[in-house]
Amino acid sequence: MSVAYDCEPWSIGVASCGIADLEPERLAHRESVLALSNGNLGWRGVLDEGEPHGVAGAFLNGVFEEHPMPYAEEGYGYPEHGQAVVRVADGQVVRLLVDDEPLDVRTGALERHEQRLELRDGLVRRAVDWTSPAGRVVRVRSERLVSFEHRGVAAIRYAVEAVDGPVTITLQSELVADEPVPDQHPDPRVRDILAHPFEPLTAHALGAAATLVHRTRRSRIGVAVAMDHRVTAPAGVEPSIRTEAEADVARTTVVVRLAAGERVELEKLVGHAWSPDLEAHALRDRAEAQLAAAREDGWEALVRAQRARLDAFWACADVEVEGEPRLQQAVRFALFQLFQASARLDARSVPGKGLTGAGYAGHVFWDFEAFVLPVLTATAPDAAEQALRWRHATLDRARERARTLRLAGASFAWRTIDGRESSGYWPASTAAFHVNAAVALGAAQHVRATGDERFEREVGLEILVETARLWATLVRRDAEGRCHIDGVTGPDEYSAIVDDNAYTNLVARGNLLAAAEAAGRHPDRARDLGASDGEIGGWVVIARALVVPFSERHGVHEHSAGSTERERWDFAASRDRYPLHDHHPYVELYRREVGKQADLVLALHVAHEAFSPEEAAAAFRWSEAITVRDSSLSAAPQAVVAAAVGHLDLAADYLAEAATLDLDDLHRNTDEGLHLASLAGIWTALVAGFGGMRDGTAGLSFSPRLPEQLTRLRFGIRVRGQELRVDVRPERTEYRLADGPPIALRHFGERVELEAGAPRSMPTPPLPDPGPRPQQPAGRAPKPFREAFAG
Amino acid sequence: MSVAYDCEPWSIGVASCGIADLEPERLAHRESVLALSNGNLGWRGVLDEGEPHGVAGAFLNGVFEEHPMPYAEEGYGYPEHGQAVVRVADGQVVRLLVDDEPLDVRTGALERHEQRLELRDGLVRRAVDWTSPAGRVVRVRSERLVSFEHRGVAAIRYAVEAVDGPVTITLQSELVADEPVPDQHPDPRVRDILAHPFEPLTAHALGAAATLVHRTRRSRIGVAVAMDHRVTAPAGVEPSIRTEAEADVARTTVVVRLAAGERVELEKLVGHAWSPDLEAHALRDRAEAQLAAAREDGWEALVRAQRARLDAFWACADVEVEGEPRLQQAVRFALFQLFQASARLDARSVPGKGLTGAGYAGHVFWDFEAFVLPVLTATAPDAAEQALRWRHATLDRARERARTLRLAGASFAWRTIDGRESSGYWPASTAAFHVNAAVALGAAQHVRATGDERFEREVGLEILVETARLWATLVRRDAEGRCHIDGVTGPDEYSAIVDDNAYTNLVARGNLLAAAEAAGRHPDRARDLGASDGEIGGWVVIARALVVPFSERHGVHEHSAGSTERERWDFAASRDRYPLHDHHPYVELYRREVGKQADLVLALHVAHEAFSPEEAAAAFRWSEAITVRDSSLSAAPQAVVAAAVGHLDLAADYLAEAATLDLDDLHRNTDEGLHLASLAGIWTALVAGFGGMRDGTAGLSFSPRLPEQLTRLRFGIRVRGQELRVDVRPERTEYRLADGPPIALRHFGERVELEAGAPRSMPTPPLPDPGPRPQQPAGRAPKPFREAFAG
Repeated sequence: MSVAYDCEPWSIGVASCGIADLEPERLAHRESVLALSNGNLGWRGVLDEGEPHGVAGAFLNGVFEEHPMPYAEEGYGYPEHGQAVVRVADGQVVRLLVDDEPLDVRTGALERHEQRLELRDGLVRRAVDWTSPAGRVVRVRSERLVSFEHRGVAAIRYAVEAVDGPVTITLQSELVADEPVPDQHPDPRVRDILAHPFEPLTAHALGAAATLVHRTRRSRIGVAVAMDHRVTAPAGVEPSIRTEAEADVARTTVVVRLAAGERVELEKLVGHAWSPDLEAHALRDRAEAQLAAAREDGWEALVRAQRARLDAFWACADVEVEGEPRLQQAVRFALFQLFQASARLDARSVPGKGLTGAGYAGHVFWDFEAFVLPVLTATAPDAAEQALRWRHATLDRARERARTLRLAGASFAWRTIDGRESSGYWPASTAAFHVNAAVALGAAQHVRATGDERFEREVGLEILVETARLWATLVRRDAEGRCHIDGVTGPDEYSAIVDDNAYTNLVARGNLLAAAEAAGRHPDRARDLGASDGEIGGWVVIARALVVPFSERHGVHEHSAGSTERERWDFAASRDRYPLHDHHPYVELYRREVGKQADLVLALHVAHEAFSPEEAAAAFRWSEAITVRDSSLSAAPQAVVAAAVGHLDLAADYLAEAATLDLDDLHRNTDEGLHLASLAGIWTALVAGFGGMRDGTAGLSFSPRLPEQLTRLRFGIRVRGQELRVDVRPERTEYRLADGPPIALRHFGERVELEAGAPRSMPTPPLPDPGPRPQQPAGRAPKPFREAFAG
Repeated sequence: MSVAYDCEPWSIGVASCGIADLEPERLAHRESVLALSNGNLGWRGVLDEGEPHGVAGAFLNGVFEEHPMPYAEEGYGYPEHGQAVVRVADGQVVRLLVDDEPLDVRTGALERHEQRLELRDGLVRRAVDWTSPAGRVVRVRSERLVSFEHRGVAAIRYAVEAVDGPVTITLQSELVADEPVPDQHPDPRVRDILAHPFEPLTAHALGAAATLVHRTRRSRIGVAVAMDHRVTAPAGVEPSIRTEAEADVARTTVVVRLAAGERVELEKLVGHAWSPDLEAHALRDRAEAQLAAAREDGWEALVRAQRARLDAFWACADVEVEGEPRLQQAVRFALFQLFQASARLDARSVPGKGLTGAGYAGHVFWDFEAFVLPVLTATAPDAAEQALRWRHATLDRARERARTLRLAGASFAWRTIDGRESSGYWPASTAAFHVNAAVALGAAQHVRATGDERFEREVGLEILVETARLWATLVRRDAEGRCHIDGVTGPDEYSAIVDDNAYTNLVARGNLLAAAEAAGRHPDRARDLGASDGEIGGWVVIARALVVPFSERHGVHEHSAGSTERERWDFAASRDRYPLHDHHPYVELYRREVGKQADLVLALHVAHEAFSPEEAAAAFRWSEAITVRDSSLSAAPQAVVAAAVGHLDLAADYLAEAATLDLDDLHRNTDEGLHLASLAGIWTALVAGFGGMRDGTAGLSFSPRLPEQLTRLRFGIRVRGQELRVDVRPERTEYRLADGPPIALRHFGERVELEAGAPRSMPTPPLPDPGPRPQQPAGRAPKPFREAFAG
């Protein structure tokens, strides 16, 4: 696949010349990459005119339809209802007619087409120079944004200049409702439900404004979408403006006659509101109130607010990398996507695809807490807090789920929109109890990073206590007093229902200890939660007794008890059958030694203190030989651990894979939305990988080492509200604290006291010989760094 | 639950007096128990008048509808289509009107009602003495049969006597089509398909005969059902007879005026034909041809033929047991059900419920080969051959399934009607590869029992070779050269995806060795099948190297590798939560040590030669402590092994449970059909349990020992076409060969040469002390023998 986007440090976009160059077959991919969002509202990067499009869509975080879960054979505890994100009324469309000929990039002559996501401005800018089939020439310039300031508002400014004239320009600005999301589900009954999830409630039109109110038929969630317009025509030209609204469509039509060189500009504001409780009129009021506030600000203020928010974010969070411009672009793109996916969460979480597409049915997964949350905690801790508050708000559902499973405490959903488990294949979901530790350790880490004691009392402690209780009932104690967790599924999806998954046992250990520590800091609150000293002491005892499986025969840690004794997958025979799960049944995958993704390797990162350097090197080497990376969640953790064990070149290759996964569509499913966890992994591969950052219970530490492909790496994190910037060069690393009280960190184990305004420069020690480069399964080695970025 | 059936040695039935005594709420249960079948055609034991009924139904073995398989999350290799048995046009109904008042046992006065399945005659006889609400008294006597002679024919003789008169008697004899089977599936879409599976093709009426032809909408199976009648009225009385037919119903109406003491008799013949290929007219011809042949024979000949076939069966197969009359009845009932379920199979198999109901969607399961087939091989070897020929006919589908699973050889369906896998939960089906060994060892055993070399060449060898190939690809060889089978599911359904399931490894071993032996007997044919000497030698090597898991710590064989290390289920806590799978998720069940059913215990029976007596005793004791018997497949194997290890009293209790399971409706689902495997288990518990019969590769042997509850046990088996009868008394056992050449057997290990007409009487050696009675989980001990039979 060719490199599709211009290489720019602060934007992502394509400048095309002619329709072939525009590559209409890649529209859906671009709509995901150029999607705008604020965490509450998302617009895919559809061309303003609506046609052609790949997969259109406007999404509100939390608006979903419910559907029955189909099972060929039922079982106790299987979720009865599923959930799927649905498209709300879409306000992106501004159609243009030039003397009655619609601007469609596939017709006429397209002299220029440029569409660009601006990472500092928080806008998508577009430029179209077009000659209609009848020969009329127009220049279109548009900007669109999803507001960080007004959480329900998106806006478009659409300007048309008549290069020759006179010409009649007609603009049709629309809200379009009840457009189905493309096939999301294997079951036709579910597809039928999701094809028309909304019933119309009311439709209103007045002046240049209109509002549609709908409700989902089963989940009974009301949604109002309102639009209003401001038209700027040349002096002396009076545009005709007319608005109509019916059940599923509202349209404002602007007609204006322009002379050569004249331009007309349409500002479109779209306001969104939703609620499972409110009546139609109240929803309408809310959507229109959103509009009113934005209209009061005016276009320029909306644009300035975007920039201001992003400036504040980039000031600390920016990652600067020298040596590969496409990597520079990719990591900023990733950070921007994480920022916009979480900017206005308000006690919700971030779905696997953010709001960039309907992939994975819009569900929030374990990957959020395991991959995305640590990045937000370091760069946008307020957003991290909101996401954790959402999990906390689902605690009652998690407790109910635990009761259903005959377990104590709380068992958080593996995939969900509203907190209820919505997975239909329990070996890969219910049995993956480690999601609970990811949530709990995410909360503990948030407290460490922010020092937010109130959060710990209100949110963190209860999550920790309830998940610790879950682990305590999952544990088996053997005759020697060692503790085991049997019959669970770790992060890897090519194994399931295993005993003593190393990752699971290690994060469970961390969870139990973190719960005990938090309870010790808030004994009164722990008592309120019913946690006696005996119960808390029990957690510590269990945590210390939890085994980590180790093969004496091979002298290496195991993915799970006995996993190294399994028959190794015949990788040579399956060269042309990736991803394996599309070509092989689970019954074959599960009984062999083959990893879809980082699992033990993830443990080597998140529980690094449990492994000596030699143990980590051996476990990494072993895992590399059996991991095929059929998951987008794999390359980044492999990069981190490759760097940690000294294989910097291999780490660079994995980083390149993570960095190109969405932009080069490596998994051929970016059409359905971006892989947010993989994007987060780009940051993690740089910061935890080459920066060597660890921020566990032992405190903040760095072991920065650059691969030869990179000459400099600068990044920043927030530590207890302060900004720490780290500047890594091959020979030295400089640590700089912007302001506030001093902090302590470690550099390659050496304690460094850092005061504001007094940067410390520390030398890079020599790299011990890491041995030969670990081998991957046949044909599954990552592309070399340079090659990956060459597309 | 009270004992519902009269205790008779050669019949099952109920004589009731009044409607309360008839217990209408138990109609569905009786319809299963009193069902008639010949293996091709099945009629549930519905009251002739059609109303009231529990769950009506007429079934043809192999007639099913196809439906999509619903999955919440899809996976590679999941079957796309499911199959479910459907009711064909039902010819059981003969409605009676007495002066225009319908005979409905719920109205008027029911002086007598008796309905009885005659085990020697192969009939259901019914007697009804009824006074209509208007006070007219009639006596109804009916007989019905499903012909063993004419595989498509069922018949009813329905006689009405006017006790007082004159009275007008109207008989409406019907064929009723497209009546839905009651809810069979969790998915409403599938239910919709199964609610109306048939489209009508043609309908014909002529004289006293009519024919309906239908076709299933998706599986495109054509079915024709024809009826014809003979009416016998008193001399000088001319009945009016009229027949009509429309798409889904045909009706012959007979009206006759009787004086007091006069009677009218209706003989109804119903012929059935089906085919996936034939056109409507050809199907009609076939169904009517079946009728013609039966009509030619006449009623009495049909009845005589039933008796003759059964006399031949009982002559060898009868089991006589002294000490508990209800056990005597139960074992004859079981044998009769097995006989009629398989009498006219013609290269089809026996579904889990036979043709007695639509339970389990009419699927054939593993249990047929594992539980039913050995009984047929011993008592009705021709039927056994037909069932094995059916499996053989599905080999292409099994090879295709193996290819899908990326395995060599053939992988037979776990549940199916036409040979294609129709299971929707792979951990309990696809992963249960042991079904293949049950089929293969069933074929090998059939050859041993019958000496049928032609069968071995045509059928047995290919099954053995293809299944041996499957096992060879499933096996893993470890560094020490031992062979393992990882990630499979054994017979127990409370564990799944385990390594080295003892039962699986042992039957795989048997399968591999049997394949090598059969190939050695037919080297030319083996070559035709592509089996080289190297391949065959490999099977023997693998078989010898297959491990049987053993816990050194506990000194006991394990259900699967490490199973004794799992946390034991908290049985005390789940006292009121049986069956466990209705109250606990798989994720909990699978990680604990708990058995739903005999698994290792089944291995102790079918692979008894692999265990020393001490090992068997230890394994049985261990298994007993963790097995909750939530499956109907458990009590019988537990009885067999309890007897083998000397716990005769416990064996008797398990036998009693198996013997009352359907008759006393212990699982509360006999409404949906009988549990044929459990019925087979009654025979097995007696013959293999107390008779101690084993008939493996080491030859035929017996170790007969009666529990104190039984004073005598006589049974017979067919050995290479000869009849061997065994007469067990507490102190001695007599072996008697009816005719033919001498055979050799072992009695408690001692070789006995047996000649026709020269019975041998052998003494019972003293019983070694078996130690204390093994304990079951709290509350799961079987009911004591006497108590069980007291109802």
